[in-house]
Amino acid sequence: MNGKRSTDAPPASQQVPVARANALVGIAGAPGVAIGTAIVLGTEKLAYPRRHIEQEEVGAEIARFEDAVARAQRELCDVAKQVEGRRVEASILEAYLLMFGDEALAEAVKVQITEDRRSAEWAVAAVCETFAARLASVNDPYLRERSHDIEFVGERLLRAFDSVPSPRTIPRINGPSILIAHDLSPADTASLVDQPVIGFITEVGTRTSHTSIMARALEIPAVVGVSDATQRIATGDVVVVDGLRGMVLIHPDTEELKASHARADRHLAHARGLSEARDRAAVTTDGLQVQLWANVELPAEALLARDQGADGIGLYRTEFLYIDRASPPTEEQQFEIFRTVVKAMAPKPVTLRTFDIGGDKFVSTFQLPPEMNPMLGLRAVRLALSRPEVFLEHLRAMVRASAYGDVRIMIPMVAGLNELRQVKTLLQRAHEEVRARGLPCADEIPLGVMIEVPAAAVLVDHFAREAAFLSLGTNDLIQYALAVDRSSRSLAYLASPFDPSILRLIVNVIRAGQEFRRPVCICGAMASDPLAAVLLCGLGMRDFSMEAAAIPEIKEAIRRISLAEAEQVAAEALACATAEEVEACVAGAFAPLLCDLLAGEP
Amino acid sequence: MNGKRSTDAPPASQQVPVARANALVGIAGAPGVAIGTAIVLGTEKLAYPRRHIEQEEVGAEIARFEDAVARAQRELCDVAKQVEGRRVEASILEAYLLMFGDEALAEAVKVQITEDRRSAEWAVAAVCETFAARLASVNDPYLRERSHDIEFVGERLLRAFDSVPSPRTIPRINGPSILIAHDLSPADTASLVDQPVIGFITEVGTRTSHTSIMARALEIPAVVGVSDATQRIATGDVVVVDGLRGMVLIHPDTEELKASHARADRHLAHARGLSEARDRAAVTTDGLQVQLWANVELPAEALLARDQGADGIGLYRTEFLYIDRASPPTEEQQFEIFRTVVKAMAPKPVTLRTFDIGGDKFVSTFQLPPEMNPMLGLRAVRLALSRPEVFLEHLRAMVRASAYGDVRIMIPMVAGLNELRQVKTLLQRAHEEVRARGLPCADEIPLGVMIEVPAAAVLVDHFAREAAFLSLGTNDLIQYALAVDRSSRSLAYLASPFDPSILRLIVNVIRAGQEFRRPVCICGAMASDPLAAVLLCGLGMRDFSMEAAAIPEIKEAIRRISLAEAEQVAAEALACATAEEVEACVAGAFAPLLCDLLAGEP
Repeated sequence: MNGKRSTDAPPASQQVPVARANALVGIAGAPGVAIGTAIVLGTEKLAYPRRHIEQEEVGAEIARFEDAVARAQRELCDVAKQVEGRRVEASILEAYLLMFGDEALAEAVKVQITEDRRSAEWAVAAVCETFAARLASVNDPYLRERSHDIEFVGERLLRAFDSVPSPRTIPRINGPSILIAHDLSPADTASLVDQPVIGFITEVGTRTSHTSIMARALEIPAVVGVSDATQRIATGDVVVVDGLRGMVLIHPDTEELKASHARADRHLAHARGLSEARDRAAVTTDGLQVQLWANVELPAEALLARDQGADGIGLYRTEFLYIDRASPPTEEQQFEIFRTVVKAMAPKPVTLRTFDIGGDKFVSTFQLPPEMNPMLGLRAVRLALSRPEVFLEHLRAMVRASAYGDVRIMIPMVAGLNELRQVKTLLQRAHEEVRARGLPCADEIPLGVMIEVPAAAVLVDHFAREAAFLSLGTNDLIQYALAVDRSSRSLAYLASPFDPSILRLIVNVIRAGQEFRRPVCICGAMASDPLAAVLLCGLGMRDFSMEAAAIPEIKEAIRRISLAEAEQVAAEALACATAEEVEACVAGAFAPLLCDLLAGEP
Repeated sequence: MNGKRSTDAPPASQQVPVARANALVGIAGAPGVAIGTAIVLGTEKLAYPRRHIEQEEVGAEIARFEDAVARAQRELCDVAKQVEGRRVEASILEAYLLMFGDEALAEAVKVQITEDRRSAEWAVAAVCETFAARLASVNDPYLRERSHDIEFVGERLLRAFDSVPSPRTIPRINGPSILIAHDLSPADTASLVDQPVIGFITEVGTRTSHTSIMARALEIPAVVGVSDATQRIATGDVVVVDGLRGMVLIHPDTEELKASHARADRHLAHARGLSEARDRAAVTTDGLQVQLWANVELPAEALLARDQGADGIGLYRTEFLYIDRASPPTEEQQFEIFRTVVKAMAPKPVTLRTFDIGGDKFVSTFQLPPEMNPMLGLRAVRLALSRPEVFLEHLRAMVRASAYGDVRIMIPMVAGLNELRQVKTLLQRAHEEVRARGLPCADEIPLGVMIEVPAAAVLVDHFAREAAFLSLGTNDLIQYALAVDRSSRSLAYLASPFDPSILRLIVNVIRAGQEFRRPVCICGAMASDPLAAVLLCGLGMRDFSMEAAAIPEIKEAIRRISLAEAEQVAAEALACATAEEVEACVAGAFAPLLCDLLAGEP
């Protein structure tokens, strides 16, 4: 939502025209403004031998593959040592180590070697390409990003073969530099830890790609998704990386340099302010405290969430466990990962969401038939209840993780009360099975529901009676309530979180929570938009879950406003007839107060 | 919904086990029970010359095609004379005559002759196959049925060529007979008018296919969708057509024969009762009168609607105008069709719904890109507003038809108030343009909205303020509110019209109508289910629009109940937590009273 709204401040485009010849437009990956000398990393593809092998070579090729995996793991461990103490990077690298050792990957490579008679290098490249392409085609920007990770795993594995030329080395840099690459792997980024790199520009990536997450963790400005950056910029060029506006300036003139330095300073002052706020509570000027939670997928993000002062994890996505596998992960594999996250956050709570697969995500594991309208199809809890054995394994892993911290379980896409009741029965059974095995677990695990299907929002009082907590998934709620595919660009104008119908449904949910004394959290993109968050606060929302990096900003927004005013504005917004009227009403009241937090303006 | 519900009466399956060897299961196409001798029509495909032609033959082939069209039209006119006085059949035949003359069809055939150098017969067969296949693939059972019509048009056209063997003739029948065929065209059915055919069985078809509509109009029992009927049944077999249960019995034993005759008699007595009720008002025992409207697509159905005593047309679907055309129909073509329907119904009102295209219907006319979730995509009013010129033509044709009767216009898939406002502006412009041309039209045309997107149901008070009337489209409302694709079989269990969330949304709409004194009509499948209709009446609904054939039954249901009791049951239903509880509550109160109207039980 950021960046599309008109506020009282002049729009960015008036200050730095997008059309100017030396400007490149991308996506704001990590905030801040940096000015430095460009170092462009080559984009050459790795060369590797593609040859068909003989039957008698199969064993040797499999051994070569296994050697390469071991070597790649050793190399990555060495890199990991360099970043010791920097938990976020170390944890992302750990995720890669896990991927190297992934059984599904090894299995697929071995099939290519044995059945297709391909050399080990070729098999690795082909398998990783297939996995990455499959992932790149899913209809979810966050998960689509993960395809780059698989590409990196493939690249590092290939480099570990003797036959493949040695890895690209990042040149020694003198003075503050800006790194430009097609993409940067976490390993690349990690090798830079002690070098004076002050900005990143990549051709691919989004706000949720690893480059962006790492850059935000390292507090280095980054612009991602700048197509042709490696063509347009040459090593030695002076460039400005504007990670607030998602813009790059090549060879800025004196005027531009001055303005950029000023923007950089303003951002630093602003960031210092936010940073100081990190350890303060999220309290309105009239004394209401709200809770800020993090939405998380990878263990690394859990650490980032803690660093940003999250009050817990409001949404832990478990779908990645099922990525491109021939069969679901074992209970043990799931348990290990859940435990890592729960221990990292303890004693703060972690809300584990049962898998939201289907729709269009990772149907390969379950071999589902294609659907005409997958978003209205067999997904999430519907799929889970249709595969009770798989679901029970998932629940048992969660129950076991509850021994290591404050675990809550949340069910996505609930449409009717029967689904909640069925999950409750299965969770009880999972609990009993874990206890019967003599394994430790919490006595009680709160079971909550996501309210993201309109029917559930309408009938939420019945859900509140039987669920331990409610969590509003506004992205899906908006999609279904307005009947607009969340990935549709041409209809995005219809799918506003400020639509009065959405506000009414949200109020309905908040009231049910109050009536039955159940916590109500919001974990959609609305929570991380300062204006929407303030409006939600006025509507009665007290728990907000969002991407960890957004927490300081939202905390700052909450600290600037008074609950009394937010409530008054919310009442006015509720009386509006259209999304435009609501947005004008909220922006009119709060944009002046929050303008430095909106649309990336420092 | 019919036939799935448990009532106090023993389920049909207990009386006549489905598994018995001499029973075939199909779909109840037209009610009643008939016992007679089978006449099986062959399913042989027509043989026609497929040859490539020379450049110099192109003109001659086009002429042969045009001759064939003229001959087919003459032949059909002859058939039409046989059914003179039977308006429904005549009107369906008229629709075929129009299809013969369709320009899009002629254009496509000529392209095949000129560019692909195909003989005229081949071109006709290929074009009709393509059109039929495209139509067969749409995600709407009603429209999918229309593909058979195109197959018939192709068949009749082919028969009109000298080169093609003469048409299948329906054998002269002695004594009461049951006709069994892969499919029956209206022309086939029409040739039977004076023959003692007392039942139909077809292998294809649904409740909304022409065979079913015609059979209901002729009051002949029919079972459709009986796969392999022409294989399993031989000419001369004694068969029972049970059009109440959708079942066929081959060589029934004495016991079965006796039971079948009893069922036939009970149905006739029941039908006589309903028929007498046709001319009576739909009034509850305590004096509340409701309006029963018809959902209609073809002009023929409008006549059927009048015969069944409909109070008007609550939903006239205009999508068929856009079927498989390279370009939208002209204003003149649309006007002609609208006028026919409006004049046929005058002075009763006709509610024209602007085209509900997109989603997955007839995107060829508009050449839309494929969508990931078409049901959440660019359809209906969204598409209309994105093509204002096409939409204006559509609106002008409607405005012109208003000179000939009581015309109302209704907008499908409205999600936000801005859409209503934009359509209002366009309708005003269409009105002015028609007046500027000096053409007659009504001074005022009421503009209403379909409430079928959850957001509109939630925000309905704002819509009621600005729209002339509201019409509940429960099929889509259920689909979006519960996030279940209406064509999904595996998730059908979730998408109940009795879901309490749906009832709450409906009540919200009814209350807004009362507050702003706007008529509220329901035109989804719920309206034609006796139990649901009674419940809706108790919730405050006063206008019901449904397939014409369902009107007598619903009228009878309304006449048997008291508003007071319906209101009490509705209040109880509203307090339920699940669809199952609602259904049990309503069935407990009313099933005994309505059991002969439910699940096809006489």
